[in-house]
Amino acid sequence: MSPTFLSPPSLDAASLNRYVKTYGASVLELDRSLAAAPAPPDLIDLTHGDTRAFTPPATAAADFHSALAENTEAYTAYRGSSSLRARIAPRLGDLLGRTVDPDRELIVTPGTQGGLFAVLSALVSSGDRVALPDPEYFMNERILAYLGAVVVRLPIEQDDKGLLSIGADNLAAARAARPRLLLLSHPNNPTGGVYESSTIQALADMAVDEDLIVVVDQLYCRLIYAGAQYTHLGALPGMIERTVTLVGPSKTESMSGYRVGVAVGPPPVVEAMERVVSLASLRAPGYCQQVLRHWAEDDAEWLTRRTAGHQALRDLMVERLRSISGVSVAPPAGSSYMFPLVGSPRWATNGPADDHEIAMAIKAAGVLVSPGYQFGPSGRGRFRINFSQDKKRLLSAAERITSALS
Amino acid sequence: MSPTFLSPPSLDAASLNRYVKTYGASVLELDRSLAAAPAPPDLIDLTHGDTRAFTPPATAAADFHSALAENTEAYTAYRGSSSLRARIAPRLGDLLGRTVDPDRELIVTPGTQGGLFAVLSALVSSGDRVALPDPEYFMNERILAYLGAVVVRLPIEQDDKGLLSIGADNLAAARAARPRLLLLSHPNNPTGGVYESSTIQALADMAVDEDLIVVVDQLYCRLIYAGAQYTHLGALPGMIERTVTLVGPSKTESMSGYRVGVAVGPPPVVEAMERVVSLASLRAPGYCQQVLRHWAEDDAEWLTRRTAGHQALRDLMVERLRSISGVSVAPPAGSSYMFPLVGSPRWATNGPADDHEIAMAIKAAGVLVSPGYQFGPSGRGRFRINFSQDKKRLLSAAERITSALS
Repeated sequence: MSPTFLSPPSLDAASLNRYVKTYGASVLELDRSLAAAPAPPDLIDLTHGDTRAFTPPATAAADFHSALAENTEAYTAYRGSSSLRARIAPRLGDLLGRTVDPDRELIVTPGTQGGLFAVLSALVSSGDRVALPDPEYFMNERILAYLGAVVVRLPIEQDDKGLLSIGADNLAAARAARPRLLLLSHPNNPTGGVYESSTIQALADMAVDEDLIVVVDQLYCRLIYAGAQYTHLGALPGMIERTVTLVGPSKTESMSGYRVGVAVGPPPVVEAMERVVSLASLRAPGYCQQVLRHWAEDDAEWLTRRTAGHQALRDLMVERLRSISGVSVAPPAGSSYMFPLVGSPRWATNGPADDHEIAMAIKAAGVLVSPGYQFGPSGRGRFRINFSQDKKRLLSAAERITSALS
Repeated sequence: MSPTFLSPPSLDAASLNRYVKTYGASVLELDRSLAAAPAPPDLIDLTHGDTRAFTPPATAAADFHSALAENTEAYTAYRGSSSLRARIAPRLGDLLGRTVDPDRELIVTPGTQGGLFAVLSALVSSGDRVALPDPEYFMNERILAYLGAVVVRLPIEQDDKGLLSIGADNLAAARAARPRLLLLSHPNNPTGGVYESSTIQALADMAVDEDLIVVVDQLYCRLIYAGAQYTHLGALPGMIERTVTLVGPSKTESMSGYRVGVAVGPPPVVEAMERVVSLASLRAPGYCQQVLRHWAEDDAEWLTRRTAGHQALRDLMVERLRSISGVSVAPPAGSSYMFPLVGSPRWATNGPADDHEIAMAIKAAGVLVSPGYQFGPSGRGRFRINFSQDKKRLLSAAERITSALS
């Protein structure tokens, strides 16, 4: 006899089925069909950065090796090593434009994803309304669905400099829906957009007026391109006491393989997050936590080089994608993502292009991209790429995408 | 204005408040008061093993360094590196007495704790009844409380060889409560007990008869002392298709600082677990996963030495604790835990001894132990120690405990 499995809670929640009508399948079914689709053996994966093209700073491995040799931090407080928190708090304060109490306002998390899960699990209950930009990082909506939250969509617009704004009407509509929490990535994943200062201020005003908690995922806040001005939402007046800011070394510094991130927020939220982290995996990996020892410390020159390297790839890729008939793309103002729109007649004969079919065609041509539906309704006809890649491979990917979409 | 925080879901669930009546405080308040209590500067921490006294096998660091140098596994499938799973599946099969399909039945988790959280989150919904031995690993009940499950207690008895059994009456009472799932650690944490084969068979019979899923945390299943026979619950007839077995290198091999574990179970459960892991932290740390490459591979000689080292400390500590008037302790048949009972008149004047006060007194004398209440109602008057320690420090701890309890 085969056992009757209990029903997983919320893992197939309604909001993940939001595309059944449009695409004939749920988000998870679409994901599975893309994963199962055949591909040439030399598939180029643009769904995440290549840590061999942009390697972690040398301090990471050195710090890890020291931690291993010392062997005193295998077990740490659930919120992370106390000495490490004391060491990085001032540096984080400089980065975020505020002070950070290492004992009460700071937690080391299992990657920035672990911080997201912890803060949302700590704060969101079933039925709570959460305002979420459209498009947004796909895992945000999945965590919210898991928790039974109701998503209030906040449509965003990206200009041709890659800057993001939210229309007054859209902001008013979101306010009217009375969310309890605002969750956003900044720079925005998947567009690489950086919010205009006026929009950040409008979001802060909404948060204060409506007594919202704000969770801002700033994983990419150190990778900002020339010409864009980045405003830290949590540093605006009235925001420190209601904002949880997530950062980490997984992207700009290519240190995703260590699974560490940090979150800064009000003490009661950090305490609740710590309890979630303790349940979910006890703590961020003890030895790996120590790779933060020299993370983002006096590395202005390194960061300038890394940013310039990505900016050159961005410009190259924007040019290549725009040369495909019917494809448009805004140059990202930060991060290593872009979110092109395919509007050519071939893909648009039956209304808006089907981004699942686009991703399937691009995969058949040898490139794995993230289909637009993952990021929200506005992803229709779009796909996300991560251009933190080896230049030759990225150019080769551009050729394959061109052939798939032409 | 200070914001009104949303209520954390279930983090203060009723079952964690179960000691308010007996102790005047919730479990979490008791934990906090022990953490805040003053201690001498050279506090000896027996709440976990000392990874410097029993160091990880040399292959761990070597495998990690290889993974870092190769730098191809920073991003893996959410269920873990595909090549790694293929490599370790046969070895896991040998350990667990069954076959393991690396693609469908195996997931690499962020520590064994990450596996526990994933499997329980995937299977347990609010209101589900879950059978749990008393005493049990304290995080099991905390995860169940977080998920809103109802605990059905299964009292266990430990004989003077450290073997565990469950009385027929207690088993019948648990069955009558109609649980949907059985969750247990084996060897048992905190007692170090190994279940008698007949009890394991009775649990299997109950699972098959009642169509239960079984989650068995076998983190310590490689550290079994002379004279004890260990039965893998998931290898009994009818159990493969309903059992999720958790193992990992965090304890016997002292590799907790890498945060990796593995779970073996039915494909639909593994798939649901993968989705929880992806939400909670994406994946076990990519580089760290690779420390499993040579884990438990042809290490019989190493394991014999390690087991003998722990068995000597066990015998020493049992003797020291038993020499304290009023203290009794069963010698663990596996693991590096023991769970002594303090029944001396000094602690028993007002009914059963108060294990919170005992832990506070032991801390004041310079040793941190885990108070009995954490592990269930049967923890009254007990404390847990982990004797995987440097011998000198352990002897010094024994002296301090003696002075605190005498």
